[in-house]
Amino acid sequence: MAERIVIVGAGFAGLACARALGSSDADVTIIDRRNYHLFVPLLYQVATAALSPADIAQPIRRLLRRHKNVKVLLGELTGVDLPAQELCLRDGGRVPYDALVLATGSSFNYFGNPEWEEHAPGLKTVEDARRLRSRLLYAFERAEQESDPERQQALMTSVVVGGGPTGVEMAGAIAELTRNTLANDFHHIDPARARTILVETGPHILSTFPEELGRYAQERLTGMGIEIRCNSAVEEIGPGTVRIGEEVLPAGTVIWGAGIKASPVAEWLGVEGDRAGRVAVNDDLSAKGIEGVFVLGDSALLIDPATDKPLPGLAQVAQQQGNHLGRALRKRLQTGEPLPAFRFRDRGNTAIIGRNAAVFDWGHSRMKGGIAWLLWAIIHVYLLSGFENRMIVSAKWVWRYFTYQRGSRLITSEEEEQKPVIYDHPRPES
Amino acid sequence: MAERIVIVGAGFAGLACARALGSSDADVTIIDRRNYHLFVPLLYQVATAALSPADIAQPIRRLLRRHKNVKVLLGELTGVDLPAQELCLRDGGRVPYDALVLATGSSFNYFGNPEWEEHAPGLKTVEDARRLRSRLLYAFERAEQESDPERQQALMTSVVVGGGPTGVEMAGAIAELTRNTLANDFHHIDPARARTILVETGPHILSTFPEELGRYAQERLTGMGIEIRCNSAVEEIGPGTVRIGEEVLPAGTVIWGAGIKASPVAEWLGVEGDRAGRVAVNDDLSAKGIEGVFVLGDSALLIDPATDKPLPGLAQVAQQQGNHLGRALRKRLQTGEPLPAFRFRDRGNTAIIGRNAAVFDWGHSRMKGGIAWLLWAIIHVYLLSGFENRMIVSAKWVWRYFTYQRGSRLITSEEEEQKPVIYDHPRPES
Repeated sequence: MAERIVIVGAGFAGLACARALGSSDADVTIIDRRNYHLFVPLLYQVATAALSPADIAQPIRRLLRRHKNVKVLLGELTGVDLPAQELCLRDGGRVPYDALVLATGSSFNYFGNPEWEEHAPGLKTVEDARRLRSRLLYAFERAEQESDPERQQALMTSVVVGGGPTGVEMAGAIAELTRNTLANDFHHIDPARARTILVETGPHILSTFPEELGRYAQERLTGMGIEIRCNSAVEEIGPGTVRIGEEVLPAGTVIWGAGIKASPVAEWLGVEGDRAGRVAVNDDLSAKGIEGVFVLGDSALLIDPATDKPLPGLAQVAQQQGNHLGRALRKRLQTGEPLPAFRFRDRGNTAIIGRNAAVFDWGHSRMKGGIAWLLWAIIHVYLLSGFENRMIVSAKWVWRYFTYQRGSRLITSEEEEQKPVIYDHPRPES
Repeated sequence: MAERIVIVGAGFAGLACARALGSSDADVTIIDRRNYHLFVPLLYQVATAALSPADIAQPIRRLLRRHKNVKVLLGELTGVDLPAQELCLRDGGRVPYDALVLATGSSFNYFGNPEWEEHAPGLKTVEDARRLRSRLLYAFERAEQESDPERQQALMTSVVVGGGPTGVEMAGAIAELTRNTLANDFHHIDPARARTILVETGPHILSTFPEELGRYAQERLTGMGIEIRCNSAVEEIGPGTVRIGEEVLPAGTVIWGAGIKASPVAEWLGVEGDRAGRVAVNDDLSAKGIEGVFVLGDSALLIDPATDKPLPGLAQVAQQQGNHLGRALRKRLQTGEPLPAFRFRDRGNTAIIGRNAAVFDWGHSRMKGGIAWLLWAIIHVYLLSGFENRMIVSAKWVWRYFTYQRGSRLITSEEEEQKPVIYDHPRPES
């Protein structure tokens, strides 16, 4: 019987792994809670009304349809039965495996304050992005109707927590949306009064980048009217307020981008995770001490011998790991060779600051400004899987670049339960 | 003081009325529950994953931003205080008016069986379309995992209730989605086994069209594999089942398109509506017997002198009425002239059957087939407000026409309350 390889999660790691195993002798199953692969690095563009969810998402079935040995399963993992070598799913189903690949990603880390999430959501899912977009636009609608100047100013204030690439991209996109795109839409409020505040605990924003690029980002963001508060630890987030030390900032919208924690892989495997919940893996990406189980991407803790530091939670790390493991497993099936060690090849680090401004860091060299922005746009359009998406997204971006228009400014409020309903047809008597 | 004209609803009628009054001396307010105008005739394309919501929706503010005398208000009408000449909104606000224009559209009519709505939703909102799309795709995901052939067949069966243009368009789009687009995505199920059943009470589908066009539609739909059941009254809809006479059809997805009823305008105005809830209006579109209140579009009952029948609930009727009333009110402000009578100019009736097939009826002449389809596509791309939308939608359609791809096949389940949250900032002591 063919080896049953089960991959959980169709993000960058899981999808790359399934693709590398496509049309091989293995019997591959990929399981995800969603029916689509999401290009999370562009999710902030959905949240700020520049793109639609379908522009950055592709049905998993479509991406893998050429591979007859890969089965796609819609389901949610609730546990792993290691002795029986079976997965437990939310709907009660059990999926047996010979090799298990866990690529279930991460969620935002509120560092012991889970109650902040409600008031300051992060961006991980299409629903997050849609909700944030609605909240942002709705705050401005309310501001337009508000007669009290202080309340109006509060509604027009957005606070982004976290000065890493996520926070910088979000702050830049919000400032552009509120200052430029909405500028002509409202008659009562003056969008120039919209405030975007970026809060960072450390002394610099983009602290993982060379200082020169961090400084450049700071200058550009300030030039866009964004207020940057470094050395500012958020101490409390309430409904519409952020407290930094003694100061309380009233805000219409608060966005969290300050840190991630791994999915509950450690719990499923019954091992101890690190502070961020990651599970230690060997250099062949197998979980330490657990036979036949592999952990990839944001959930894996692997020290990079080149830097002596854990590999960061980046799409390129996840994608390379998935591809490496898929090829390695494929080769082992054919030749019986042991799995080779994974080596991360750093493709460079990037952050987009706004229209016409981005930074790149390749270690040995760096780049900033308009050319960096163009490079970023080309790379990201290329990375979006699927030709149609590339065509549409390029057309949208070119159009919006010249017009400052954002086509997806919809407040879609979902008052009803939107989970798809499925009816149970009675089984025939047998 | 300028005359305060308040328009409720930013559909085809309300938007046309506001535009016609744009940059006039009137003080215009347009109120809608949503921040966008929705091109409802293409909503079925969102439900069948061919378009994204943002492709067929435009922010109301953007559409009206050139007109400084038009105020856009996000709000939901709950009643009209006729003696005080004020509107009551859900959030407790009251809006005074000198002239009131009610253009609040319609919802689906379940003819005394409101409990059917849950199992057989209609298509009126973006949320409806998204929910239906999720339900449809999720049924196929479940079918892929189902081992019992009868249950599998049930999950792959879609029933569309109502053989008018809405039902015909929906059935055609579902058949294309399930038979062509999904065909290569699944490995276990055979999409050729997908059934689409169109149920109509009367003896013919498209009964408002000339018989020749109805027959053509019937042939084309049958050729696409759609089962048409005429003379079949739906007697019961339960979870996953539709009963016609004694026969119970098991179905994964049921869609309602069998009739509309007006929004509660009659209730708000304290008058008697007709069977479909419509309020009788004079030929200048003012509500009969109520000073200063106008009713437009699907909520208005106006006998067309040309046919001696009530004007149908079509986008073109609504749009012409809104435009007529806006111009008439504008002229009255300038010259004091009484409002002229509205005359409907029939632009022709159309229904799209599927790829390469549509019907047109202009009374004196008619058209069917591929040229009609092309004409339909050109008209609809043109009607979509906004240049960017036209460009994007055209590109998507051309691409999809040649590839059978549908880019928006996302199951986005909204488990959480998605209503935008807005925080109340304490008012300063005053």
